[in-house]
Order: sequence, then C-alpha cells, then structure tokens
Amino acid sequence: MPAHALTIGFDADDTLWHNETIFERVHERYRALLSHYHDAATVDRTLFATEMRNLELYGYGVKGFTLSSIETAIALTDGKISADEIQQLIALGQEMLAHPVDLLDGVAETLSVLGGQHRLLVITKGDLRDQERKLARSGLAAHFRHVEILSEKDEGTYAALFRRHVIDPARFLMVGNSLKSDILPVLALGGAGAHVPYHLTWAAERVEAPPRDQARFFQLKTVRELPATLTQWSATF
Amino acid sequence: MPAHALTIGFDADDTLWHNETIFERVHERYRALLSHYHDAATVDRTLFATEMRNLELYGYGVKGFTLSSIETAIALTDGKISADEIQQLIALGQEMLAHPVDLLDGVAETLSVLGGQHRLLVITKGDLRDQERKLARSGLAAHFRHVEILSEKDEGTYAALFRRHVIDPARFLMVGNSLKSDILPVLALGGAGAHVPYHLTWAAERVEAPPRDQARFFQLKTVRELPATLTQWSATF
Repeated sequence: MPAHALTIGFDADDTLWHNETIFERVHERYRALLSHYHDAATVDRTLFATEMRNLELYGYGVKGFTLSSIETAIALTDGKISADEIQQLIALGQEMLAHPVDLLDGVAETLSVLGGQHRLLVITKGDLRDQERKLARSGLAAHFRHVEILSEKDEGTYAALFRRHVIDPARFLMVGNSLKSDILPVLALGGAGAHVPYHLTWAAERVEAPPRDQARFFQLKTVRELPATLTQWSATF
Repeated sequence: MPAHALTIGFDADDTLWHNETIFERVHERYRALLSHYHDAATVDRTLFATEMRNLELYGYGVKGFTLSSIETAIALTDGKISADEIQQLIALGQEMLAHPVDLLDGVAETLSVLGGQHRLLVITKGDLRDQERKLARSGLAAHFRHVEILSEKDEGTYAALFRRHVIDPARFLMVGNSLKSDILPVLALGGAGAHVPYHLTWAAERVEAPPRDQARFFQLKTVRELPATLTQWSATF
C-alpha cells in the first residue's frame, strides 16, 4: 500500500449492489395483498410508521421489516388477514434474504482500480448475517480490508470506527447513496464524502438539506467518477 | 495493562446475563397458545426444526426466532391460527427485545477484578442491535476493550478475530456456557477455554462429547472461580 494511501469507506446497499429496488417490488406485492382493505398511500404510510416505531427494537434489515409488515397487515385489516396471507409475508421476507446480489454498474471495475492503491472498507447497516452473505455472494470481499456492520451510522459510530481502525478523518472518504447515513456524519467529523445517489431512497434516509458547498463534499453521478474525485480531493492536502 | 496481561473473551447470553430463561418462558406461552392443536413435544420439535431450517437465512437472535415461531404456528394449525394470536407472537418477540438485563451472579465483581489486569472482550452471536442494547443496559460495557458480535462462532470466525485484534491464541482464554460455540473452536485453535454451564442449554448449542482432559480446558461452576483459574493457567506458561 503506497505511503499516500487513503482510507475509503463504502456503503453497501444501493451503493455496491441494488437493494431498494428489491424492497420496492416487495412493497408493490404488499400493497396488492392489502388492496381490498386500504389504498396504497394508507398502506405505505402505516407500514412506514410501524417500521419507525419498531426501529429502536428491531434495528435495520429484512427481518425487522418482515415483522413490521406482518404487524401492520394485522392492524390494517382489523385482524381479518388470513394465516395464509401472513405466511406469504414471511415467504416474501425469505425471498428478499435469498435474493441474488446484483452489482451496480461500474462497481467491480472501480474497486479493482482503487483496491491496489488505498485501504477500502465496507461500512453498512442491517442484519449481520444478511450483509455478510451479500458481501460473500458479491464477489467483492477480497477488495476490502475490513467489513463493519453497524447498528446505526451516525457521528458516534463513525468516531468509534475511526478510533478502532486508527483512521485519520482528514484522509478518510466515505462513498454512499445516503446523505443522512454516509455523508453528513462523516463531513461533521472532518472526513470527506462522495454522494452517489440511487434512483430510489428509503423515506427514513431522506434529508431536507444537502451539504452546503464545501471542499470535502463531492456529488457524483456514478461510482466510476471516484478515481478522478480522489485525485481532485488529494490535490487539496 | 501489565506486560503479562492476557486476553479474555466473554460470551454474553447466559454467561454475563440470563437469556435462555427468557426464551424458556416464551416457549411455555407458545406451547400454551398451540395446546388446542398439538402436545408440547410436537410444538417444541417442530419449532426447533423450523429454526434450524431458517438459521442460514435468519442467523441467531430474537427476530429470527419470532419469524420462525409464526411460521411454525401457521403450519401446526393448518392456517387456523388467528391474526390476533399471531399478533401475540409478535408482541412476545418485542417483550424479549425489551426485557431488562439480569446479570448472572458474580459477573460484575469478577469483571471488576479482571478488567484492571487483562484485556477483556465480548464475543457473542445474535442480532446486532439487541446485543448492543443489552451490553449498554448491563452496566458492564466499560470493562470491555472491544465488543465482537459475530454471525457464527466457529474456528473460522475466531481465527479471523485473532488476526483482527492481533491476539496470540496461546494467551487467549474464552469464557462461556456453550461448549460448542465458546470452548471447542478456541481449544482447536490453541487457546484456552473456561466452561461455565448455565442451567439451561438451547438444543442447537448441545454437543455430545465434552473436551477431553487437557491443560487448556477448565470446567467451572461459577464465573467467580475465574481469577483462580487464570492463576492456574498462567502457571503453565
């Protein structure tokens, strides 16, 4: 690893591989299942409220989502939903967990380019086993020095991670699709952030205000722009 | 930390705090809920089979257990279980997650004694957020240098952990209630193990054969014996 190496953290879901598209297809089937009882907007709003209420207990990930979807379906149907339909929700969750990993365009090539020059980390949320399985299936694991699966991504957990891996925030860049989880906390700690939006964003990850114009924030269209971004950022050291 | 410091890993559930007793009470309520349909032995056997079938997808922890308990109840009642009863299973899972942390006898005092002299780690399985919450609530977090929540505890994951924390297995002792997860893989890698049985053992953690008599294996009745065990073990270096 060259002396000028940087540490680059990568979010996983919707940054390395498609994820929200899978959730979106499940939401469509969920709305269809409950369409005899409520319109789609009510279903979406109630499910999201249940997820947010349970987040502290369940954390992120497919298992908590599945439990919240069952709880919501029972509430929205006044208990009229059948056991067979609940079994369909369980099966939907299992399909999500077993879903093939579909890499985003340009990810494999970009990691190959950067991996020889810099220390790459995965920094993600979600169910422990699910994220480990996706990384193993992605074929990308060998590019990463460490994999950190966190229960939350905020200033506190990033700061702990910097201490744990002896990372100088001034030489750390985080790449991800969520301004809230990937970019804002890292900028606040003195690191850099490269935002690569995904075409769908889960409501819980949406923020009102993007970061103000600043030298350590980079807005990208695709991960393929990352090598040029690193050159641009390194020039400011 | 003295130069002769050792690294001591502690399992969490049923080693630091009570856990299987909470599951056992939930099992009792689960058997009662299904008692109109099947005898307790059938309920237990079918639930365990569902859990084992789903383990690869769900991993360990309360959320996967809850999903498996719903799936089993639907199957065992041929879909006759009501949505209200399924909501009771969801609530049971939430109660487990919100349950107060009840330390095992002697744990707090023993960690206070050992923490000043040795590097202490928590090495546990389960849901990420659930284990973090229990550790935070336990009041024990300050004793531990690192907390490792793993999706599995076997030779491969212990070996990776030794590399990650630069641990010499010859100076590592693991303390836990599960021969399968806490003791046998560590002994196989050249470390030491102190087995402190809990009065209940989940079927998936039971092993046929305890470790053969060997200098690096210690059978304890309570964690209070740990300081004396360390003295005995250190004398062999």
